[in-house]
Amino acid sequence: MIEGVPFVAVTRGERIESVHAVAACAATAGGETLLALGAIDEPVFLRSAAKPFIAAAVVRAGAAERFGFDDRDLAVMSASHNGEPEHVAAVAALLEKIGAQPADLQCGAHAPSYEPAAAALAARGEAPTSLHNNCSGKHAGILALCKMQGSPFTGYREAGHPAQRAILELCERVSDDRFPAGRLGIDGCGIPVYATSLRNAARSFARFATLAGLDAGDAEALARVRAAMIAEPFYVGGSARFDTDLMRVGNGRIAAKAGAEGVHATALLDAGAGLVLKVVDGTRRAAPPAAIALLTQLGALDAMQAAALGAHACVAVKNVAGTTVGEVRALSGN
Amino acid sequence: MIEGVPFVAVTRGERIESVHAVAACAATAGGETLLALGAIDEPVFLRSAAKPFIAAAVVRAGAAERFGFDDRDLAVMSASHNGEPEHVAAVAALLEKIGAQPADLQCGAHAPSYEPAAAALAARGEAPTSLHNNCSGKHAGILALCKMQGSPFTGYREAGHPAQRAILELCERVSDDRFPAGRLGIDGCGIPVYATSLRNAARSFARFATLAGLDAGDAEALARVRAAMIAEPFYVGGSARFDTDLMRVGNGRIAAKAGAEGVHATALLDAGAGLVLKVVDGTRRAAPPAAIALLTQLGALDAMQAAALGAHACVAVKNVAGTTVGEVRALSGN
Repeated sequence: MIEGVPFVAVTRGERIESVHAVAACAATAGGETLLALGAIDEPVFLRSAAKPFIAAAVVRAGAAERFGFDDRDLAVMSASHNGEPEHVAAVAALLEKIGAQPADLQCGAHAPSYEPAAAALAARGEAPTSLHNNCSGKHAGILALCKMQGSPFTGYREAGHPAQRAILELCERVSDDRFPAGRLGIDGCGIPVYATSLRNAARSFARFATLAGLDAGDAEALARVRAAMIAEPFYVGGSARFDTDLMRVGNGRIAAKAGAEGVHATALLDAGAGLVLKVVDGTRRAAPPAAIALLTQLGALDAMQAAALGAHACVAVKNVAGTTVGEVRALSGN
Repeated sequence: MIEGVPFVAVTRGERIESVHAVAACAATAGGETLLALGAIDEPVFLRSAAKPFIAAAVVRAGAAERFGFDDRDLAVMSASHNGEPEHVAAVAALLEKIGAQPADLQCGAHAPSYEPAAAALAARGEAPTSLHNNCSGKHAGILALCKMQGSPFTGYREAGHPAQRAILELCERVSDDRFPAGRLGIDGCGIPVYATSLRNAARSFARFATLAGLDAGDAEALARVRAAMIAEPFYVGGSARFDTDLMRVGNGRIAAKAGAEGVHATALLDAGAGLVLKVVDGTRRAAPPAAIALLTQLGALDAMQAAALGAHACVAVKNVAGTTVGEVRALSGN
């Protein structure tokens, strides 16, 4: 069972009201542990933090060349996007490149994650579509992988489908781990997710950062995805999103991807390392303050960069009237 | 800082994905500790779990007699209600009894907590009002207290206002605790909230259950509020709400009130005890499974009652398509 250490406080007035425990590991591509917090050998589901590896499996199959994917296509394929108009347009364009339709997406529809985009859609009297789903780019990428394989769109979310098998095989190679049925779950958008230890995940993101220890095909594919995420960070998240802002502040030296239930992963190009953390209780609000504190501790963010991310490091808790009554921030001493 | 023990699991497939720690105390009115979990002497904000005591301060001031409050009025005054049409109508009726207007409520507006009620409101093109705020009944009750005091509605949310002073004084008497400025915070609806230990809070709810150790006026007021909550549980919460269902299943022997950031409190009439728990990380989803496990452990719920609350004890985790992919439930062995 995942265990962590108290790391993020939620305050109200002068008091700490709630506390989030965090488990985390930073490691090099060779497997040297740079930082360990909590139970780093317990398998955890990476959720959407694994999306860059899924996008890499699509690229590895040759889809980027065949369909002429640009950075924006690969960024939105690796995204948990906000469902803003730009994201919807990017996924629609991606589908057009591969000759697929929005109706082929089996991710399901949900309202845009970005509240103003959801409100604008509702104000126009429009229902959300599968294009607004934060995973729509990933699903479009999997359709591209099906096309490359000549495998059917039908059943593309099933673990036994050739597209999912190709994705899991790449994840196994990158993580040096194996994913039998007991290590799989079903993600919010219906595709398999795998559980691996934070230690393995940190090494995987270190390989994403360094391309070391990978075969040439995987290295080339991961390099392409990493460059795309860093070049088009808006398409990986969107307005006011931590990953987007972190990659902007990172000056091309950090690739970042959050996952549901409090997962956050970064590839640190300068350090040649990966950092993966899990908020033990799965709460999203604690992940950005924890990531910023750990990245600062690792020297991956300097004081100016950390200051530029201040709105993510210390998030105001507001009451209904909009008055600030507390904050979410890393515990002092971390 | 609040500390707890791992108590509620969130599963995905065959694995535990996230874990919530819980701190809890059960005690008698005399202060005998029946159950202790985690840091029970650390002050925590009770948030809306304190609403029955706020309603009691209103009753203690004589408002129930003067304005002819019935059970429904007192239940919605103690509520974190769903904003369903019945709740909105009940608060409107309460305001009319005291000669106040919806515009006098300073709780702010938010969409009904109950999703179908929010959707129905949006479908009619109507904006939420302060009546829909889950705290609107409490605020209406505070207006009644102002009327009894002859104090102004203006500033009724401020800690220095006579209405808030009367409320805090009752809370101090019931909890045998004191609330200087450092122990106060501002609640989501703008009024002061106080932090007291789970040990004190459990004894307070034991007194709510037994009326022991209280002066006659407080005892009479708390008895009136308790009877109202138990008689009209729908008005304390609403459709599909844990507190409402728990009081229904409790056969008149349990009064229950949740608070934000993972607080849950029960007055156990048969045991003459109170149980108060806090999900350490503040996550709402973990409170009902934890409460049911602890109430069962205390003998306050038998197997049939626990089974009747099954939908709250084990909550399905669904993906966007509606497929169950995991569950939220107390860890086995608790």
